[in-house]
Amino acid sequence: MSVDTLQYLLGMAGTVAFAVTGVLAVTPRGIDFFGACVLGLITAIGGGTIRDLILGVPVFWAADLNYIWVALGASFVAFLTERLLTRREIHRTMLYLDALGVSMFAIQAAQKVMWLDFGMPIAPILLGVLTAIGGGLLRDVLAGQPTLLKRRELYAIPVTCGCILYVTLLTWFPAYAVLTGVVCSLLILCLRSSAIYWDLHVPLWLTTQSRHTDSTQSKK
Amino acid sequence: MSVDTLQYLLGMAGTVAFAVTGVLAVTPRGIDFFGACVLGLITAIGGGTIRDLILGVPVFWAADLNYIWVALGASFVAFLTERLLTRREIHRTMLYLDALGVSMFAIQAAQKVMWLDFGMPIAPILLGVLTAIGGGLLRDVLAGQPTLLKRRELYAIPVTCGCILYVTLLTWFPAYAVLTGVVCSLLILCLRSSAIYWDLHVPLWLTTQSRHTDSTQSKK
Amino acid sequence: MSVDTLQYLLGMAGTVAFAVTGVLAVTPRGIDFFGACVLGLITAIGGGTIRDLILGVPVFWAADLNYIWVALGASFVAFLTERLLTRREIHRTMLYLDALGVSMFAIQAAQKVMWLDFGMPIAPILLGVLTAIGGGLLRDVLAGQPTLLKRRELYAIPVTCGCILYVTLLTWFPAYAVLTGVVCSLLILCLRSSAIYWDLHVPLWLTTQSRHTDSTQSKK
Repeated sequence: MSVDTLQYLLGMAGTVAFAVTGVLAVTPRGIDFFGACVLGLITAIGGGTIRDLILGVPVFWAADLNYIWVALGASFVAFLTERLLTRREIHRTMLYLDALGVSMFAIQAAQKVMWLDFGMPIAPILLGVLTAIGGGLLRDVLAGQPTLLKRRELYAIPVTCGCILYVTLLTWFPAYAVLTGVVCSLLILCLRSSAIYWDLHVPLWLTTQSRHTDSTQSKK
Repeated sequence: MSVDTLQYLLGMAGTVAFAVTGVLAVTPRGIDFFGACVLGLITAIGGGTIRDLILGVPVFWAADLNYIWVALGASFVAFLTERLLTRREIHRTMLYLDALGVSMFAIQAAQKVMWLDFGMPIAPILLGVLTAIGGGLLRDVLAGQPTLLKRRELYAIPVTCGCILYVTLLTWFPAYAVLTGVVCSLLILCLRSSAIYWDLHVPLWLTTQSRHTDSTQSKK
Repeated sequence: MSVDTLQYLLGMAGTVAFAVTGVLAVTPRGIDFFGACVLGLITAIGGGTIRDLILGVPVFWAADLNYIWVALGASFVAFLTERLLTRREIHRTMLYLDALGVSMFAIQAAQKVMWLDFGMPIAPILLGVLTAIGGGLLRDVLAGQPTLLKRRELYAIPVTCGCILYVTLLTWFPAYAVLTGVVCSLLILCLRSSAIYWDLHVPLWLTTQSRHTDSTQSKK
């Protein structure tokens, strides 16, 4: 199996994980199967779609519809087997798969932006992060849930660190593109997995305290 | 009157209906005239705009500003006559006009995507549905209301069925493009009108039950 | 100092103000530093990005990354010095700077759309307003706050008046492009500053009253 095939299969595994975690994020609040499939699909392909719109290139799934089929299929299965998937150990597995997807998609996106020589050096980082978290943001907004940006989850920060390192290393050592990509993906995967494993959050001193605690509790 | 003129006039009637139902969806919760006009306009042209961005073609209203004028005018009139329009029989009429708009815009969008040979066979279905419901989704998100995806309304499902049938038939019988389009539009119109008439919803067994019922009630 | 340099510096001052007011809009409800920086950045460049996507031109910040650096830097500083910035007189200063940014960005956007001869005469007005308020809308949606469209703030209406006047004057007197731009920017700045100074809102008779007052109070 070649490196390309492996990367493709890992990408599909990541797509499955994105769709499944997307569906599981909305099912606890009551949703019909249509909404679940749409939100699963959006979680899986939303980030990359916004990235491609900003880059001004054709959306990635137009050229390879497998991303759509896999995301729709995974969402459908996730909706049907939802009670099974929310069992703690299976949900955990999906979170780790999701971390794998995030780590790969972010670096792939940064790579794509660097190839296009688009807004170096900050755009590859921004669009890498956007690709990784954009789908989840869209899903939460459409489902009326608090987005990632409000949840103190250690999700986007590992991705940002990985993308910054990737762009920095590749600017200094352009010859080691593949190695750098693998290392930075692994870095994101490790950081994110640690956050899942030890249930780490952004420390409170890096957070402004809500001054409307009472009203926010009752209102939102 | 030619078929094209008829289609154009029906399209404008659909635009009016989208804008009016858009304004009526937000006025019960208190809104000023500026917000109402913006949200009416977004309901009317939002879906098609997102579709065109994804397709990478110029937005449809840039070439024919009548869509904007009609949507803005209808929103303005709807805001002024809101107390009249919410009378049950008139509101019903607008819902049926909205169904007409949805059925036409979805099939027109699927047609446009197929002409561009973009991501066949799944993209015409996805973008047909997106064109029909995208404007309403945007409106609900900007107005802070629960979106369609959370409401168990039989709205997007008839559209999806119609678009799937359209793409299937047109792949098998490419010679009957006009007939297929009319039939599938009518199918969506019938299904959606039935849902309005008998107040049909997605059955509960196709829905995950909210496990946070109490907290959701009080919080959201 | 040439006019171009002055305009550029004022544009950067506006970017700083957008980012800072963006951060200050979300910090009272509790947010970590990552979310604050992302939302500050989105407030500053979101409107112009959506405008460029609709116009089908490369996003403005790809060609001049200073917009990103300045917005990120200002967001970071705003997060750190937040308790200082919320002191009444400093917050006021930022609101006036924000008004300056709005007035310039709206007219610049209308100008850009007119140069491209895109959807005259309505598109320059729509996209001028969208550029001015789009970033704030995105921020509020992602932060789960009521958007501008629901708040009866006199924010978008001054911008709309200025853009309408700008397009009207420029259609009649195309020779006085610079003068017209300055006059219309000043008009927006004056109207918006008056709204800040006297705490003006959209009058209630231009607003539909919420008919769900009780439920909205407790639910939302």
